[in-house]
Amino acid sequence: MSHTDPLAHVRDLFDLDDEVVYLDGNSLGAPPRNVAERVQDVIANQWGRRLIRGWSEGWWTAPERVGDRVGRLVGAAPGQVVVADSTSVNLFKALMAAVRGTDRAEIVVDAGTFPTDGYVARSVAELSGLALRPVDPEHLDPTDATAVVLLNHVDYRTGRLLDMAEATERVHAVGAKVVWDLCHSVGVLPIELDRLGVDLAVGCTYKFLNGGPGSPAFLYVPKDAQADFHQPLTGWTGHREPFAMSTDYTPDDGVSRARVGTPDIISMLALDAALDVWDQVDLADVRAKGLALTAHFRGLVEGLPGIEVITPADERRGHQVSLRHPDAKALMDRLAERRVIGDHRPPDVLRFGFAPLYNTFEDAERAAAALEGLL
Amino acid sequence: MSHTDPLAHVRDLFDLDDEVVYLDGNSLGAPPRNVAERVQDVIANQWGRRLIRGWSEGWWTAPERVGDRVGRLVGAAPGQVVVADSTSVNLFKALMAAVRGTDRAEIVVDAGTFPTDGYVARSVAELSGLALRPVDPEHLDPTDATAVVLLNHVDYRTGRLLDMAEATERVHAVGAKVVWDLCHSVGVLPIELDRLGVDLAVGCTYKFLNGGPGSPAFLYVPKDAQADFHQPLTGWTGHREPFAMSTDYTPDDGVSRARVGTPDIISMLALDAALDVWDQVDLADVRAKGLALTAHFRGLVEGLPGIEVITPADERRGHQVSLRHPDAKALMDRLAERRVIGDHRPPDVLRFGFAPLYNTFEDAERAAAALEGLL
Repeated sequence: MSHTDPLAHVRDLFDLDDEVVYLDGNSLGAPPRNVAERVQDVIANQWGRRLIRGWSEGWWTAPERVGDRVGRLVGAAPGQVVVADSTSVNLFKALMAAVRGTDRAEIVVDAGTFPTDGYVARSVAELSGLALRPVDPEHLDPTDATAVVLLNHVDYRTGRLLDMAEATERVHAVGAKVVWDLCHSVGVLPIELDRLGVDLAVGCTYKFLNGGPGSPAFLYVPKDAQADFHQPLTGWTGHREPFAMSTDYTPDDGVSRARVGTPDIISMLALDAALDVWDQVDLADVRAKGLALTAHFRGLVEGLPGIEVITPADERRGHQVSLRHPDAKALMDRLAERRVIGDHRPPDVLRFGFAPLYNTFEDAERAAAALEGLL
Repeated sequence: MSHTDPLAHVRDLFDLDDEVVYLDGNSLGAPPRNVAERVQDVIANQWGRRLIRGWSEGWWTAPERVGDRVGRLVGAAPGQVVVADSTSVNLFKALMAAVRGTDRAEIVVDAGTFPTDGYVARSVAELSGLALRPVDPEHLDPTDATAVVLLNHVDYRTGRLLDMAEATERVHAVGAKVVWDLCHSVGVLPIELDRLGVDLAVGCTYKFLNGGPGSPAFLYVPKDAQADFHQPLTGWTGHREPFAMSTDYTPDDGVSRARVGTPDIISMLALDAALDVWDQVDLADVRAKGLALTAHFRGLVEGLPGIEVITPADERRGHQVSLRHPDAKALMDRLAERRVIGDHRPPDVLRFGFAPLYNTFEDAERAAAALEGLL
């Protein structure tokens, strides 16, 4: 089977072991080659030679500058995204800000959400005295009692993609706010946060954005919501004048109010380097190749004995193919021995993530053949 | 003036520019030489070759493992410190946990505290319905209405060191809890959190621990307080079984419950490398040299025209010397032109930090001579 691949050259920008079929970029992206060199420069020259002066030579504003680069990938005009903290911490900020001062009674959350989203939503509900109502996101039913709805754009387990436009409109129709978790969709397909009027969004940068293990997450606060964005992690770097060292907290006028503590520069600038790859690609090409890769793999594994494909067959999916099999964990361990790396989610799901920037159609074929050999 | 220096050889472990007199290690420590190489290994080999498998080969437990290394420097037995998030986020966790379920009415905070501490304490007071009472920490007066007292071990502005034993005892005498911020004292002098029965402590790792710009902070939760430590940032990595992906949050039994999101591995392991230096030194030697360096500098600048030394002259001080001068900012800028790097805190404070691991008595002399030349 032959495939045209407008992104074939991009694989060379990554440091990959050709012996390994790496299909876990939906959990941890592979390293772009330029990251190692950039980080050396950050340590040896910026930190080593400029020392404290680094803060006024680009470090201090890195959360907003790198945030704008992420913003370009999610349809956010500049000045609306900061890179900071973890996804969980950003979820807390977003939900606390969303329910602040509400007279509504409930937070609605995807019942099958990635666990941290549900845990944080419950915590915010308890702190703010609201109820938490888990729902099937395919049958979203917000009411005029709903303050905010937290949704995963792509389900981490099944790979199901929600229709962001439709769901956002449904939430807005009852006067509620929507917070989108983009962890499994950023870098997967074009996203249009500004155009759809999304209220708040968070996401991680270590999956399809390849920022490195545990690289800092991002938070989107649109311009017209910034003045009302108040969250309780009132760290000094979110202050309007952080170096005035005043005793009262006055949040920054813009998105910087979503910052908390001192930004983690080595990881932040590793991510900054990793984002360079995205300057060379069109998200529409990424999406087209991702759909083709996952369709190809699906075609090869569908019908294998004991395998059930749980990822939607139509385009309402991200860039992973999830298979159900009773021996999922053992199968994935044995695949790893054959140098095919995916992952397992309990109890019985095998996940194969396809990163269009570096995965090939041959990767899909090698993985499918290895799986077939085990069954 | 001659000084014996048992730590003279340690300077060689740092990557320093001998042309520069760097006296801002109290704000950003200088890079230990081994950090660059270690981080290359993390990127090229751990991330680059082991990919997702890195999580089960040391990354996942790094917050506790590196936490134990920090613990050794603050008198905490293993299993009581995690490295995670920023100081501000950890302060939020600590204070929220400290006031949870209290029937007391107030949080007491150092009136001259580093701003983020005061901002976060106010936020926690508002969330929990308590009052916030700023006090002079030299005249600490907790009452039976006090739930928790947040104290800075070393004042960032003046360099004043509080007596941790005395203050902890005073707070405990009224049945309140004490949270210590160790940002400016960790790596400065021996600290005995366990022995003194401190309730909770936080600190940063990028000052005297040399972890790199914005390196992750730490949080100390003593063994006997862990079961009651509940904080609202209920991210998945604090769960007892994070990979069970269950819908209910059950905190880990131990200190891992203080974790939130996915740990930032590149920065975490840069810090891990930086901590190697501490395996070779005795904190008592560090403290002795720090007192000698700051005394030497003090002796050289005291009496210079327009200069007032605001750091205590006795041993109740950290490893900085703070000077008041009406033209503080301009003076510090001109010192930088002469390759003497300290910093300025508004409105009128010049800070000179002495890091005993790499600063020399000659550094003190060169800085004092440069300052004298400008006055």
